[in-house]
Amino acid sequence: MQDNDASPVTDDEIFHGHEGGKLSVAAVRPISQPRDLSVAYTPGVAKVSRAIAEDAALAKRYTWADRLVVVVSDGTAVLGLGDIGASASLPVMEGKSVLFKTFGGLDSIPLVLDTTDVDEIVETLVRLRPSYGAVNLEDISAPRCFELEDKLKAALDCPVMHDDQHGTAIVTLAALRGANIVLGRDISKQRVVVSGAGAAGVACARILQEAGVADVTMLDSRGIIHSGRENLNPVKEKLAETTNSAGLRGGLAEALEGADVFLGLSGSTFDESLLAAMAEDPIVFALSNPDPEVRPEMAAKYAAIVATGRSDYPNQINNVLAFPGVFRGALDAGARAITENMKLAAADAIVAVAQDDLGPDRIVPSPLDPRVAPEVAAAVAKAAIADGVTA
Amino acid sequence: MQDNDASPVTDDEIFHGHEGGKLSVAAVRPISQPRDLSVAYTPGVAKVSRAIAEDAALAKRYTWADRLVVVVSDGTAVLGLGDIGASASLPVMEGKSVLFKTFGGLDSIPLVLDTTDVDEIVETLVRLRPSYGAVNLEDISAPRCFELEDKLKAALDCPVMHDDQHGTAIVTLAALRGANIVLGRDISKQRVVVSGAGAAGVACARILQEAGVADVTMLDSRGIIHSGRENLNPVKEKLAETTNSAGLRGGLAEALEGADVFLGLSGSTFDESLLAAMAEDPIVFALSNPDPEVRPEMAAKYAAIVATGRSDYPNQINNVLAFPGVFRGALDAGARAITENMKLAAADAIVAVAQDDLGPDRIVPSPLDPRVAPEVAAAVAKAAIADGVTA
Repeated sequence: MQDNDASPVTDDEIFHGHEGGKLSVAAVRPISQPRDLSVAYTPGVAKVSRAIAEDAALAKRYTWADRLVVVVSDGTAVLGLGDIGASASLPVMEGKSVLFKTFGGLDSIPLVLDTTDVDEIVETLVRLRPSYGAVNLEDISAPRCFELEDKLKAALDCPVMHDDQHGTAIVTLAALRGANIVLGRDISKQRVVVSGAGAAGVACARILQEAGVADVTMLDSRGIIHSGRENLNPVKEKLAETTNSAGLRGGLAEALEGADVFLGLSGSTFDESLLAAMAEDPIVFALSNPDPEVRPEMAAKYAAIVATGRSDYPNQINNVLAFPGVFRGALDAGARAITENMKLAAADAIVAVAQDDLGPDRIVPSPLDPRVAPEVAAAVAKAAIADGVTA
Repeated sequence: MQDNDASPVTDDEIFHGHEGGKLSVAAVRPISQPRDLSVAYTPGVAKVSRAIAEDAALAKRYTWADRLVVVVSDGTAVLGLGDIGASASLPVMEGKSVLFKTFGGLDSIPLVLDTTDVDEIVETLVRLRPSYGAVNLEDISAPRCFELEDKLKAALDCPVMHDDQHGTAIVTLAALRGANIVLGRDISKQRVVVSGAGAAGVACARILQEAGVADVTMLDSRGIIHSGRENLNPVKEKLAETTNSAGLRGGLAEALEGADVFLGLSGSTFDESLLAAMAEDPIVFALSNPDPEVRPEMAAKYAAIVATGRSDYPNQINNVLAFPGVFRGALDAGARAITENMKLAAADAIVAVAQDDLGPDRIVPSPLDPRVAPEVAAAVAKAAIADGVTA
């Protein structure tokens, strides 16, 4: 994709681009004569309904449910805007559906919920289960998002993924692999500092550990997470056990001392001079949006490789590299879940697309690279089959 | 619409026409360059979400929710197939969405529910309220459908209509008006027998009374409904009070004696000789599908005008004449409800389209007449404004 117009996007352009909403439902086969109606509706449709009533597996073939993703939010953590409610989150969810279609060829519908009760959200999606094939959770606040995803995965026999967690984690892992290939380093030997223990930070820490990173230290707004801290929520209590093997205490300055990788998912900023304490030529991912933890041009003074979440700098870490292919692969394979191996396979597939063309300013493919989603889908489907989670 | 092929629709054709389901979600404005993505998704979308968070009314303008119909079923009364479950009902709901788009230009999504508990269905739709603009209930068994519709109307500030009730009632009233114009009769002076006290029968009886028919007698599977009967459910108890002013008792033979109109919505058949007891040149609507109460060619021996629900006979009473225009008009007007006057206006608009071309074999327009939905929508919107139910 090429931009024909590099001028700044205006408010007028944005609001005009949302007029009437961004989605439309179409008939796959148009109704242009009475015969079409007899096929698609009565009396023809009765034969299809009866067939599904007799053999439930036929719903997969003769309805759209098994290829439909529901994009679900309660509006509690919308972009950087916080808890703005379900209705105000809808433009984001519609946008997500546009991306699912554009990059993954997948149909999806936004379902925004006027409840923030985890059990009520689970109950609602369980009741709607015959309507869809997979659940993409979006913009749900931490730590509720962890509990919600866990409960949904237990309650539903279909792919469920909170994209703010795992989409970010997959692309971050891919980018870190890409950066390490460029620098000729071994990911398992690095000391990684993750700033931010929300949805994205927690999922990134986990996937890095699964990918073999032995030394991860996490910080939340109160500093380094360690087992001596009080009033940790259950998620952070577990992190205190599984991370920070050196038993560090203190704040960002203490954490960064000698670290090889900084991963910012905190929503806050700090002075770039702190980066001076890191190991030589570190990797700095300042992923908060719209304001990265450190300004990338400043971080570049200290770091060998810098990445952000922004489209106006090199190395954009963008979830769209992951979620369309992950869901496409899971649905294509008939997966009942999205496993850790499927996520790791997705990260590997993203790196593989960029492999021949890697550099300090190109550690991941462009978010709009059309090769990515099909490669990710194929890798995810293969991993699903290998993991034995397909029907 | 013209049929190019009059041969019978084959099973192969039907199942092929359902392969992969019948619906697709598309982006209204395609994403073809990075700039489109910055408008439709981050960072642009944040401005739209923030604007809606500050002024909730803007959701109407900048999301698809206010023009989206959810087609809701629990699969308890699917076509003539009965309680076949949510998943097996989905092809019908997808077909309904196809019709909403084709005739009303409306986006809609099927939501089929794995619960048959009325309060749970209400609760689910209340939680999803920020996601949609109107509710079309479909194929939900009686008498639950009456309670469900009443509770939903009380709980939601948007149009709610059970199409099996009111779509059928609107088109039936239109057809009866058309038949009376053809025969030069006064609808208010007729004695109407309604066989079947399910969703359609009850709604038809009510709309006929609202339209001025003073003498309606109803039958269920146990015979004429009268106030002396025991174990009537609350809906039938009320019908016993408001219908059958002559206090008839017995079965169909007793009810038909001297009646001007027979309206069959019973799902059962009877011998056409019973029609001989009706008043001279009666009107017979045998609407059960696929088997009309009496075969239309037999009914024609007794009746001045015969109508059915079938596409292979003249005078097809088909809901598609009503629901696309009713919902379109209600949503266009920003109606918070669908009132009785809106339904009566819809019936009048359907008759008006056929007005210049009425005859014994043409008491309503063709189900595929493209003039109908826009006329119905305009009339319904006008009635909504007159009733003061618009925003």
